[in-house]
Amino acid sequence: MFFSVIGAGVCDGKTYALAEQVGRELAQRGATVVCGGLGGVMEAACRGAKGAGGRTIGILPGTDDREANAYVDIPIVTGLGEARNVIVVRSGRAVIAVGGEYGTLSEIAFALKFGIPVIGLGTWPLARYGKIVPEIAQASDASEAVDLAFSRIVP
Amino acid sequence: MFFSVIGAGVCDGKTYALAEQVGRELAQRGATVVCGGLGGVMEAACRGAKGAGGRTIGILPGTDDREANAYVDIPIVTGLGEARNVIVVRSGRAVIAVGGEYGTLSEIAFALKFGIPVIGLGTWPLARYGKIVPEIAQASDASEAVDLAFSRIVP
Amino acid sequence: MFFSVIGAGVCDGKTYALAEQVGRELAQRGATVVCGGLGGVMEAACRGAKGAGGRTIGILPGTDDREANAYVDIPIVTGLGEARNVIVVRSGRAVIAVGGEYGTLSEIAFALKFGIPVIGLGTWPLARYGKIVPEIAQASDASEAVDLAFSRIVP
Amino acid sequence: MFFSVIGAGVCDGKTYALAEQVGRELAQRGATVVCGGLGGVMEAACRGAKGAGGRTIGILPGTDDREANAYVDIPIVTGLGEARNVIVVRSGRAVIAVGGEYGTLSEIAFALKFGIPVIGLGTWPLARYGKIVPEIAQASDASEAVDLAFSRIVP
Repeated sequence: MFFSVIGAGVCDGKTYALAEQVGRELAQRGATVVCGGLGGVMEAACRGAKGAGGRTIGILPGTDDREANAYVDIPIVTGLGEARNVIVVRSGRAVIAVGGEYGTLSEIAFALKFGIPVIGLGTWPLARYGKIVPEIAQASDASEAVDLAFSRIVP
Repeated sequence: MFFSVIGAGVCDGKTYALAEQVGRELAQRGATVVCGGLGGVMEAACRGAKGAGGRTIGILPGTDDREANAYVDIPIVTGLGEARNVIVVRSGRAVIAVGGEYGTLSEIAFALKFGIPVIGLGTWPLARYGKIVPEIAQASDASEAVDLAFSRIVP
Repeated sequence: MFFSVIGAGVCDGKTYALAEQVGRELAQRGATVVCGGLGGVMEAACRGAKGAGGRTIGILPGTDDREANAYVDIPIVTGLGEARNVIVVRSGRAVIAVGGEYGTLSEIAFALKFGIPVIGLGTWPLARYGKIVPEIAQASDASEAVDLAFSRIVP
Repeated sequence: MFFSVIGAGVCDGKTYALAEQVGRELAQRGATVVCGGLGGVMEAACRGAKGAGGRTIGILPGTDDREANAYVDIPIVTGLGEARNVIVVRSGRAVIAVGGEYGTLSEIAFALKFGIPVIGLGTWPLARYGKIVPEIAQASDASEAVDLAFSRIVP
């Protein structure tokens, strides 16, 4: 089972720890982490997954696999720039957003567009307006986020 | 000068009229309308522009130029699905969002990511939270939206 | 009617003159030139078309419309790198290849894959082996190439 | 080490057996097979690799991971159509072409454009003209193809 973890390429220590815990929990439940392959939240999720013996995929924007963070097992080299965000989203059965900036917002939007479940961990405030985007499931910690991700996938 | 007009492929009459007015004003000031080439807001903006003698470009998601609405002068056939949203955004000097669903949200997010000015007309509520996304300039009518678009472009 | 003119971004004077003549003939017959928007054959085709009062579209690989050559009317900014070759091919009703390197070969291949007519002017030698790729129509000069392009389009 | 195996989505039994042998040899030497994820040569290469305990990646053109052949471990869902060919090529350190039609030709062209080594097994005749495309190394059997692929990778 593949899950996408999305978030900013640069983040503070608290967000990093949260993403690392998400990666760890996913790996402990046998899931593969898909991400954009770069730093920040992407690196943290991969690092967490690798620490728990898991598998990690990085969908890279550039043309060189050396831009992948050190915890990516499988670098996919797209050369497509930010258009690769669509692939990050489509390749997971659900998306867990940890914090995030505009790139993350584009991925949340694509996931909602494609009908892929989105779990939020301290992510975009649009998620706070239940009437507007009820499809985003807000979690309060990494464990709950992973629980929600597994429970929401479309069979 | 190229401006992107973004919004849902299906919309109500009020939104359609608003987008048509945006297209008309852009054309009257000599601008070219770039959009996703399909129906709803995209069609309305093209129709407005054509009615004022303007020029329209449709960046199509599919593989057949016949999916373009009847008011597209220049159909660009990408075959990329929703990944073409990146091109809609990058090809304009500013983006005017009229209403909009998740696809529109992805385009707003990309524009903000790329540093391209975004003008909102009844669009995503994230735009209402000044502290969060101050880069979105809210307009109250089509004329103001076009004024803002021209005033915000990066030289 | 849109026709794609493809070829290398750097070329010798003879090839440049040939591509310029192709662009001129296309414009004289009312066609729009689609190309990759950069130098060499792309620039020559756009220059020829503009000199005859025609219209030109450049599907750019990078993220800045200033990379377009000086004769592009309509720069489409993709940010997709060489993946934009697919769009160059899909947006024309037929493809005219003038000389060309590997990028051009990728475009010829896509056109043949998509069932889009390909006209060759001193292009890839695979075109010389009639049994192998009969779909490529070899022309001996610009005028014949444009004749063939118009005659081969799928209604 | 990742190697791309490219070829047609439908092929005869001899070509299938050849591609399967290529996949097997790659896996036996510890390499991962990257391919377009569909049938024919792509399926054969994955099947060969899996039979030898290897790992396989399928870069899919569509929007559903169920289009992957049964021997793909890691489906990457792009939704980009044939533009995904660029990713198949970029994600390998070398490309082995087994037979092939126009899609394969586009991938050979991209590999040559990007400076990625191409090994040919009964593939496009352009490869037979040493003066024209010396970068394509012709192999006479699967074992030699894999040898060449390993020997040509850029450190």
